[in-house]
Order: sequence, then C-alpha cells, then structure tokens
Amino acid sequence: MSTDELAAHPWRLDSPLSAVPSAVDAQLKEYLNRSQEEFSHIGPLVGGAITVLRDFIVNGGKRVRPTFAWAGIRAALEGGGGSSPAAGIDQGAILNALSAFEFIQACALIHDDIIDRSDTRRGFPTAHRTFESKHHERGWLGSSEHYGISQAILIGDLAFAWADDLYNGSGLSTTALQRARPAWRAMRTEVIGGQILDIALEANGSEDVADSFAVIKYKTASYTVARPLHIGAALAGANEQTQTMLRNVGQDIGEAFQLRDDQLGVFGDPEVTGKPSGDDLRTGKRTTLINEALQRGDESQVAALREGLGKGEESAETDIERLRDIIYDTGAQAEVEKLIEARTQRAIESLRAGGLGADITAELTQLAEELTHRRF
Amino acid sequence: MSTDELAAHPWRLDSPLSAVPSAVDAQLKEYLNRSQEEFSHIGPLVGGAITVLRDFIVNGGKRVRPTFAWAGIRAALEGGGGSSPAAGIDQGAILNALSAFEFIQACALIHDDIIDRSDTRRGFPTAHRTFESKHHERGWLGSSEHYGISQAILIGDLAFAWADDLYNGSGLSTTALQRARPAWRAMRTEVIGGQILDIALEANGSEDVADSFAVIKYKTASYTVARPLHIGAALAGANEQTQTMLRNVGQDIGEAFQLRDDQLGVFGDPEVTGKPSGDDLRTGKRTTLINEALQRGDESQVAALREGLGKGEESAETDIERLRDIIYDTGAQAEVEKLIEARTQRAIESLRAGGLGADITAELTQLAEELTHRRF
Repeated sequence: MSTDELAAHPWRLDSPLSAVPSAVDAQLKEYLNRSQEEFSHIGPLVGGAITVLRDFIVNGGKRVRPTFAWAGIRAALEGGGGSSPAAGIDQGAILNALSAFEFIQACALIHDDIIDRSDTRRGFPTAHRTFESKHHERGWLGSSEHYGISQAILIGDLAFAWADDLYNGSGLSTTALQRARPAWRAMRTEVIGGQILDIALEANGSEDVADSFAVIKYKTASYTVARPLHIGAALAGANEQTQTMLRNVGQDIGEAFQLRDDQLGVFGDPEVTGKPSGDDLRTGKRTTLINEALQRGDESQVAALREGLGKGEESAETDIERLRDIIYDTGAQAEVEKLIEARTQRAIESLRAGGLGADITAELTQLAEELTHRRF
Repeated sequence: MSTDELAAHPWRLDSPLSAVPSAVDAQLKEYLNRSQEEFSHIGPLVGGAITVLRDFIVNGGKRVRPTFAWAGIRAALEGGGGSSPAAGIDQGAILNALSAFEFIQACALIHDDIIDRSDTRRGFPTAHRTFESKHHERGWLGSSEHYGISQAILIGDLAFAWADDLYNGSGLSTTALQRARPAWRAMRTEVIGGQILDIALEANGSEDVADSFAVIKYKTASYTVARPLHIGAALAGANEQTQTMLRNVGQDIGEAFQLRDDQLGVFGDPEVTGKPSGDDLRTGKRTTLINEALQRGDESQVAALREGLGKGEESAETDIERLRDIIYDTGAQAEVEKLIEARTQRAIESLRAGGLGADITAELTQLAEELTHRRF
C-alpha cells in the first residue's frame, strides 16, 4: 500500500475480521497498479488486458477467503499456540498474503465464467465477454467469441501467476510459508479438482447426492473456508490441535454456506438475492438439494422434476412454483436445512470449546452465522 | 525420484546439459504419480483428468527450459561467482526446480492449443481433443467440444499450480529462491504477456515487423532461454555481471531460435521438420519473416503475398512454391538469416569472453549452435 493508504488502513495484529475487505481492496489496487507499470514495456495491448483484470478484481467481491485467512492468523495468535514475532508474522507482509487469495479467486471466476458461458458477473460483463466486445467494436479479424475466450484464459493465468508472486514474495518468513505450504498446495488443487469434478458430473448426468456433496466439499468448503483458515493458522504457527479444529470448523461452515446457496437457488426471494427466482431450477443444475429431492420423491414427483428442470427462460413463474412445491413436499428442503443447522451448530460449539481468545471466537462465530443463515 | 531412479540418474553439480532431459523425465513421472496418489480422494473422475495431464507431460518435449536453467546453475558455479554449498544449492532439490519449468510449459501448451484450435501436438491429440473424445465416446450430456475446452482449461491451471508447488517447495534454500524471485515472476508474466500480444496482433491484422518481433522477444526468447538461464544463475548465486551476460546471451539465442523457426515454417523440408511444407504460409501467420517480406516487397509481390497467404489446405504445392519464391526474392529470407547469424555470433562471443569454465562454455556454445542452425 502507499503511505496514504497505509495510514488509512493501519494493520495491527488485532485488526477485526471486518477490517479485511477494505484493507485488501487497497492492497490489491496498489499491487495491480504497480504490476501494470512493471510490465508496461510489453506494450499497450497487454496493458489493456491487464486493465480488464484490474477492473474485474477491483469491482467487488466480499473478500471471504482473505477474511478467513486472517481469522486463522488471529486464532493462532489469540490462544492457538502461535506467537508473534516468534511466528515470523510480519504485519506489513500479511496484507500481501491475504490479497493473494483474491488473485486465485479471480482466476477461478474468470475461467469458470468461460466454462459456464456466463455473460455477467456482479452486474458487469464477464471477462471473456469484455474482450469479445472490444474485438467486435474494433472490427478485428476472426471470431470475436473465440478471441474473448482466448484472452480471458490468459488473464486468468496471469492472475494465478500473480497470486503465487504475491504469496511467496509477500515478505512473510520462510518458516511461516513453509509451515503453510501443504495447505496452500491442497487449497489450489482441491478447488481445481472440485471444478473438474463438477463439470464431469454435469456431463455424466449424475443425480447422486454423494457426488454433488463431493463438489461442495472441494470446490466450495475446502477452498472458501477450511483451507484459508488452515493456511492462516499454519502461517502464524498455530499448534496441531488448533489447526485441525479450525480446518474442521471451516469445513462445516463452508458446507453449510454452500447448502444455504442451494436453498436460496430454489427458494430465495429474488428481491433479496438479486438473482432470478428459482435460478437453479431454470438451469437444472443437480445440486445436493435437488438430488435429495430426486432421491426422496415418489415416481410422479421425480418424473415432474425431471420434466420441469433445466428449461431456462422457457419456464413460467407457475412452473417454477410447482417445482419448488414438489421439492418442499419431498422433504428435501427440510433435510438440507437440517444439514445446515447440524454443521453450523457443530462449528460454533467447536469454536466455543476451542480455547481461543474471546474476541476471535466471537468474530468467527458471528461470521459463521452470517454466512449460513444469510438470505442473499 | 525413487531410489532406483536416483541410482539410474545420479545428479551431480557437474552433470552435463545433455543429462537434463532424462533426469527431468524421471522426476516428472515420480512427481505426477505421487500427486495423483495424494489427491486420489477427490475421486476417480479427477484421477482420470490428472492422467490426461500426466500423459501430456510424459509424452515428449525436449526439456529445453530445464536444460537452460541447469546451464545457468552450472555457469554460476563454474566461474560465475556462485559457489555451493554457499549458494544454498542442494543437489536433491535441483531436479525439482528444473522440473517445475515443464509444468509451466504444460499449462502454456494446453491453453495455447485451445486458443489455436489445434487438434494434435507431438503426434498425439491435444488435451482438449482428448477430453472431447472421452465425452463423445461415453455419450455424455452437452457439447463435447465445450466439455473438452473446459476440462483442458482446468488441467492447464492444475499444471500451473503444481509448477509453483514444485518450485517453491523444491527444497532449495530460501536465499536461493529469493535471489531468483524477480526472474521467476518476470518469466511467467512475460510468456503470458507475449501470448496476449500475439493473439491481439493476429486479431488487429498487424503486419509490422516490430510487432512480430515483440512477440518473439517475450513469448519465445525470454521465456525459453533468457529467463531460464537467468533463474538458474540467480538460484546458484551468480554475480551481477554473469547474470546480465547470461540473460543477454539467452535473449540472443532465443530470438535466433524463433527466427530459425520462422525460416523453417516457410522453407523447411517437410521430410526433416515433420511438419507440412510451408506451414506458416498456409496459416498466414504474420511472422517476422513474412512481415519483412511484406515490408520489402514491391507492390505486385505484396499483393501476391496478401492474396496467397492463409489459404490453409486449399493451397496447391505450386502456390506454396510461388509464395516461397516471392519471399526469397524480396530479400526477407536473407535478412532474417542475417539476424539469426548476428545473434548467434554475438551470443557465442559473449560466452567465450564471459570468463566461465571451459566445460560449461563449450556445452552452452554447442547448444546455441544446435538451436539456431537446426534443420528441424
């Protein structure tokens, strides 16, 4: 961060979790500007592509992964067995490491948007559509669509490279980085593996609850919560017991978070979620909720679901209502709600019994509740 | 490597450059098997995808980048100011770091093949085509083509993640890794930047020699030779003077190597190159050679070139002959040959005057000549 920004976001070893997003935002902007300057010699066409990446990263995101990584560091330092400076945790370097998670996320989202053929993300055109439009507006040669995909693959790659540069060059001590290396490796492989699995299951038509749950485990829970907490704790030298506890807590919170997403994708109020009503019903995605319904439903319910799911914009609001009622009637909604509750409660109990300081315990508990009980 | 393989490929600090490919091959196999085992819990569908990556990496490649990185290490240790173990270079860790370059290369090739819509690579189907065929054979849902592209994007990402895991977790000392960090960062950004530039120039129809040369500089020369030499030298603690000399030598060799490729793409004997005759004429790619011809040609030559280039399989062998003659007549072939010679000679003279040991000087000189005077 620049001196001004540092002054606006002084980072301390007890900064609250809620302070992470704005501090990470400032750090990301500074790093992106510096990197764009550093590689400006490759020419303005590449500078323009980096601008697309910068806009993508700067325009939003809740910075969930940096927040959990910071929670892991705080947990280590507040009763989890780590101690600074013995842990080799340098306050100036922490924001670099936290920001690195957002570059991994940028790569994941940019590549996922290509895979899912998505046109918008957070109200803006997706990266491949942005490049596609530029190509089209300039009347360039060849297929605008393929150009968009190609450049978006590449700026996703660039984001992934910079994630590692920011993380390994963060300034955190080697001892700290070394402790966290297995978790850092696992997080990246698990999110990519989870996405490979997700696509393969969509293609093979699986309606197996265990299959959809495996995607939740790796693509969401591990990547979004469990590993960021684990990495933060390992960086700051938490003892084994705390690391294991946080990883399990993170896995529970992450699974509950995604199961809540499944519920909102069917039952969410569009005025609150900002997404079309029954989005998952229109896409026909085999989420855990929908697979539960297919497993629990009687013959006619299953037939009606198979018939009605995945009709996209064709589905009238009354069709959507009907599918929603069927899913509710099978008991799948109640079952998923039970899974969410069990995980949230187990996580909160583990945190309360975890022997961490009162502040971090309260902040993590609140975050767990927000993420799993959210209505949007 | 396993004990058996280590015994078959003992690595010493004076191992010749020619020993790199087989040692790296063995190391790559071992790492891929270990990683597949490590993440087998994500399930067989992901295991299958990792097998595609493994086959891609194991089936060939000349291991050019690991070879130059090793040359950089040897140069540092043989007169370049580095010394082991003061340099923090551990023999067991070196092969990990050298192998990491091949994972970056795997990502670059897998993603480039999507971008270039290539069907084969080294005589095998490209990764996206392999996934596409599997999807098709199994009669899975959705578009086989889009499935192939999606999974290939993801295993490219996985290769990129593992490159960093192998490199940063190689076991090389922090001091060594820290010294090489700017070069490691630059190499990855430059190759992606060079590819972004290449695609943008193809789309905007540039026929500017300077534009095509910028692609050579970043996408090939820096990535393939200059930065690997630079990284190796920095890892092993070479002095500033040696690092700069090797980087310049590498830039010259790399540029000459790609200019030779341009020549072979037009004038190469298909029986020797193994590629169709006049490949670049059929694709119409604006290489430096072709842009030189367009700049030097008179009005009728330029018109004939613009008319005849890029007709793909439509071009008869006589059309190809004619384009080849025009390019020769403009003097572009001779000019590019001069550029190759100047760079090769400058590189060899710098090496001879570089104050490095006789062995590494001779081996690097030989490699430079092989790569720039090759007929295939």
